Amino acid sequence: MVELSVVGILAGLDQVALADVERHINRKTFSAGAQIIEPESDSSDVYLILSGKVRIVNYSLSGREITLEEIGAGGCVGQLSAIDGEPRSACVLAVTNTDVAIVSPANFEKIVKNHPSVAWSVIRELARIVRTSTRRIVDVSTLGANERVVAEILRCSQIEIAEDGSAMLSPVPVHSEIASRVSTSRETVARVMGTLARNGLIAKVELGLYVPNVQRLEEFLSESIH
Amino acid sequence: MVELSVVGILAGLDQVALADVERHINRKTFSAGAQIIEPESDSSDVYLILSGKVRIVNYSLSGREITLEEIGAGGCVGQLSAIDGEPRSACVLAVTNTDVAIVSPANFEKIVKNHPSVAWSVIRELARIVRTSTRRIVDVSTLGANERVVAEILRCSQIEIAEDGSAMLSPVPVHSEIASRVSTSRETVARVMGTLARNGLIAKVELGLYVPNVQRLEEFLSESIH
Repeated sequence: MVELSVVGILAGLDQVALADVERHINRKTFSAGAQIIEPESDSSDVYLILSGKVRIVNYSLSGREITLEEIGAGGCVGQLSAIDGEPRSACVLAVTNTDVAIVSPANFEKIVKNHPSVAWSVIRELARIVRTSTRRIVDVSTLGANERVVAEILRCSQIEIAEDGSAMLSPVPVHSEIASRVSTSRETVARVMGTLARNGLIAKVELGLYVPNVQRLEEFLSESIH
Repeated sequence: MVELSVVGILAGLDQVALADVERHINRKTFSAGAQIIEPESDSSDVYLILSGKVRIVNYSLSGREITLEEIGAGGCVGQLSAIDGEPRSACVLAVTNTDVAIVSPANFEKIVKNHPSVAWSVIRELARIVRTSTRRIVDVSTLGANERVVAEILRCSQIEIAEDGSAMLSPVPVHSEIASRVSTSRETVARVMGTLARNGLIAKVELGLYVPNVQRLEEFLSESIH
């Protein structure tokens, strides 16, 4: 059984406090592809991800799927409704088989208010989401679809950057997932990645997607904007 | 002198706690148009808005201004950097003359950790920003510029809705501000508002912008999407 201490927002708790939280959760396993949070449901439970990976998606009025984020083990989803009592803002799907610990809204509020370290972690996590969202609003408001694809590959590369200025994205990012993350079509992603490969800015290799020079990719993006 | 109790995140504090916070702030007044937070600055102070109004803006790589939000008296800006220590994500400008209380990042963290009610209020405020941002990401990813203008007028109307289903937006929203909020040009806003007026969905009157039937505006929007 996975320990609750893997969960980021509970990291500051000692064994006694963790054991207390353990008494107020329900554990559940979702299979890959299963819907963890449905948009119509009126539940306000919080889901702590113990293992596996989930995708937070939203749908436009015309039914198009927009990926907001993917969250792995240690993450936390569904907290918005527990915090403000409003309806779910998005759906959550299990990407792989996923073990979760489910916390009721009342218990979530109690844990946050009883443990200042948990409160601060929840605040940090929400601040992270606000920053990611702000960057995306600016991107999608001001960059064309092509530039957004390049910006997304650049962002992934900057996290993985090695000492020689290269980056290896492993596994190779799936076109449809990039498309959903930057609000464009899979075809646009394929086209842009073709252009980047022809310019020697990226290369598919056995280990993943290789970016020989992250700075050069950055220059390519700013040249295409100005 | 404006009392600190006007500030939303401090609402749960008693007089003793408020007096303690008062000892850890600096008060300052900004004139209309002044820059309160500069993007290059490495300060991480939090600004509590005591009176007036501020605008949070971001700039694209090509220099275009994107309004993220407007915050009035009682609000709080600049908390992201105080929370995560990262650089400022946006600029903050005074729209009108604005009185603020400035809190250092260390004092902000101390206040949050000492007062569970403040922690919960900060969490609620960040959750609100996440919801607004999510809606905007979905809008800007899936709606055309025309529909985004209608959606924005609809959102403002839904807040002001009267018993007879009408709404009065007062003062009349400024075209350039709507444009910046929904990431389009002032000309597009003017054109869409012209169309809405010709269809009897909005009317400029002495008091402001009158929406005779908010539900009809809603139907107009969903028809133009499908």
